[in-house]
Amino acid sequence: SVVFNPKEHQHIRYNPLKGDWVLVSAHRMKRPWSGATEKPAEENIARHNPNNPLCPGATRINGEVNPNYESTFEFDNDFPVFLDDGAPSPGPNEHPLLRAESAVGKCRVMCFHPWSDITLPLMSLAEIRKVIDQWADIMLDLGSRFKWVQIFENKGKIMGCSNPHPHCQVWASSFLPNELKLEDDQQRDYYKKNKIPMLMDYVKVEMEKKERMVVENAYWLAVVPYWATWPFETMLLPKRHILRLPDLSDEERDGLADIMKKLLAKYDNLFETSFPYSMGWHGAPTGTCMQEDCTHWQLHAHYYPPLLRSASVKKFMVGYEMLAQVQRDLTAEQAAKKLEELSEVHYKLKLS
Amino acid sequence: SVVFNPKEHQHIRYNPLKGDWVLVSAHRMKRPWSGATEKPAEENIARHNPNNPLCPGATRINGEVNPNYESTFEFDNDFPVFLDDGAPSPGPNEHPLLRAESAVGKCRVMCFHPWSDITLPLMSLAEIRKVIDQWADIMLDLGSRFKWVQIFENKGKIMGCSNPHPHCQVWASSFLPNELKLEDDQQRDYYKKNKIPMLMDYVKVEMEKKERMVVENAYWLAVVPYWATWPFETMLLPKRHILRLPDLSDEERDGLADIMKKLLAKYDNLFETSFPYSMGWHGAPTGTCMQEDCTHWQLHAHYYPPLLRSASVKKFMVGYEMLAQVQRDLTAEQAAKKLEELSEVHYKLKLS
Ligand SMILES: O=P(O)(O)O[C@H]1O[C@H](CO)[C@@H](O)[C@H](O)[C@H]1O
Ligand SMILES: O=P(O)(O)O[C@H]1O[C@H](CO)[C@@H](O)[C@H](O)[C@H]1O
Repeated sequence: SVVFNPKEHQHIRYNPLKGDWVLVSAHRMKRPWSGATEKPAEENIARHNPNNPLCPGATRINGEVNPNYESTFEFDNDFPVFLDDGAPSPGPNEHPLLRAESAVGKCRVMCFHPWSDITLPLMSLAEIRKVIDQWADIMLDLGSRFKWVQIFENKGKIMGCSNPHPHCQVWASSFLPNELKLEDDQQRDYYKKNKIPMLMDYVKVEMEKKERMVVENAYWLAVVPYWATWPFETMLLPKRHILRLPDLSDEERDGLADIMKKLLAKYDNLFETSFPYSMGWHGAPTGTCMQEDCTHWQLHAHYYPPLLRSASVKKFMVGYEMLAQVQRDLTAEQAAKKLEELSEVHYKLKLS
Repeated sequence: SVVFNPKEHQHIRYNPLKGDWVLVSAHRMKRPWSGATEKPAEENIARHNPNNPLCPGATRINGEVNPNYESTFEFDNDFPVFLDDGAPSPGPNEHPLLRAESAVGKCRVMCFHPWSDITLPLMSLAEIRKVIDQWADIMLDLGSRFKWVQIFENKGKIMGCSNPHPHCQVWASSFLPNELKLEDDQQRDYYKKNKIPMLMDYVKVEMEKKERMVVENAYWLAVVPYWATWPFETMLLPKRHILRLPDLSDEERDGLADIMKKLLAKYDNLFETSFPYSMGWHGAPTGTCMQEDCTHWQLHAHYYPPLLRSASVKKFMVGYEMLAQVQRDLTAEQAAKKLEELSEVHYKLKLS
């Protein structure tokens, strides 16, 4: 009988954070691609554009003038999904199948750097560290009022980013969003059963096996999770049990800057392009949840990059994926190996 | 105090089929869009291209020659996600966090029509009816062996479709995929509590309210569901309680051809373009589930179209959506009204 080989034999893998499955069919990388191709990432972005509302000194839509900031810069989103004047309650539901609830929240934008033509892996460690400190501060500030504070970065036009200036967004809400309800439930169950936080246990497994490790330092690891959905998806995990961003020590913040710079350089090196992705932080809920026991949680970041074969061919999560189940075309181990083998030095910084 | 207005006030709505929520922030349509734009749908596709493996008489990658088919044509996918020789079992898991299971399945492709330059709304009712009959036959055939048979169509390059010839795919599997586990659980719970299948109850609500109805005939309705995620998402629902496609009567099949033609003409008319989408059928599970009580199920089709503002500006489901919760920029009622008001006659068929 044939011996199981994950690269040859389709199988499904369980995602313990979400409680669902991914279909893995690595043999599918062999099919030719004649579908849509993406435009390459923009090159030659001006360092400073006075008409770009994210630039230092620019005037934003509401008439405010940005300061001549020199590291990070944070402000209220001018086109927020949550309006500030709150929202009246939808009131009682007309029918159990027509259920609405009110949603209160706050949207902020944070620029990483005064220059438009730089990205995180090209920034210095000290500059990345400032971004991390600012993330922690935002969590403290908005976390005191909101149950959930979602920090996320959409990088690249292909990920819906409409401004090339390096920045992230923060959407804080009065409710725990879907993905976090799942992660909260799943981690809670695991902790109850195993008396160890799920992702702490997972860190142990990955440090032993080293099959899906992309890069590691004294405080952090970046792995392609066993249950990865996106082709080169990774998860950033601290080695110590940490609930929320502000809990990171000084050394852990420096370590995070170090591993981010390395991971993102590898990403850019993979197809020698400014690698698009959506990324974001997940940690224990905040607001009123700060008083509750959240031991089952472990802080982590997800990176979801869409590219599959080249700078211009992405993975389409469409028909089967939307209607039935997510599917991937290479194994997590194959993706990890490719990323692991790439240089930690950004291709643009290499002397030729 | 301010009166709640869903078009002005952000809120969350519950999706009873999936058990999760969507954030609705309709005021967000006002923001300017300076992000990525999509290439327009291909025009001037040749009616017949002997090198296109989906065309009548063409030779496929495996050397087989397609018959000179005159209506629908079905064959095994040449680049299947499920390999025919099955897959050996991954065996016992190394760790509870590294869980894999075997996945057996079958992938088929079905061409809708011999011409490459036609789409469903431009086909005759009799031709669409043939597609429907073929769908029912596939369900009978593969449904006898597999627990789940996913019929789906990816239409348009933007939806990962790599061949302009009108066709759909069928991926049948030994396991119930994620989305169906959710729909199965949610419908089962609803039925237990309310003694009526959830979607039968929903049909009643929408026929009374008429606020989200796009088009209706004696046997079917097409609505933008109250909990729609994609901007112009719709759901096709039969008016009678029906578990699976093969159970449709002769009249219901004709009715389905009629409503599909009208709905898809409206879709194309919205931005005067061949409207991209992924669509697929969900009904009671098959295989060994045929012996079980599936009364809680109701057959339905989901249409997930990505366009938001024009033929070239789509909704990006990225950072916040991937990491936290799906979000939409217009209400289901606004989308339904737009679609409802559009002509049922395809813009290409109108005499000018
Ligand atoms: O099999 P196709 O049409 O080439 O592939 C398309 O549909 C599949 C099923 O939704 C997806 O997995 C692919 O990413 C997409 O490109
Ligand atoms: O606010 P932005 O960056 O303009 O918008 C982008 O990110 C949002 C949050 O993921 C998405 O809802 C939008 O579709 C996307 O274009």
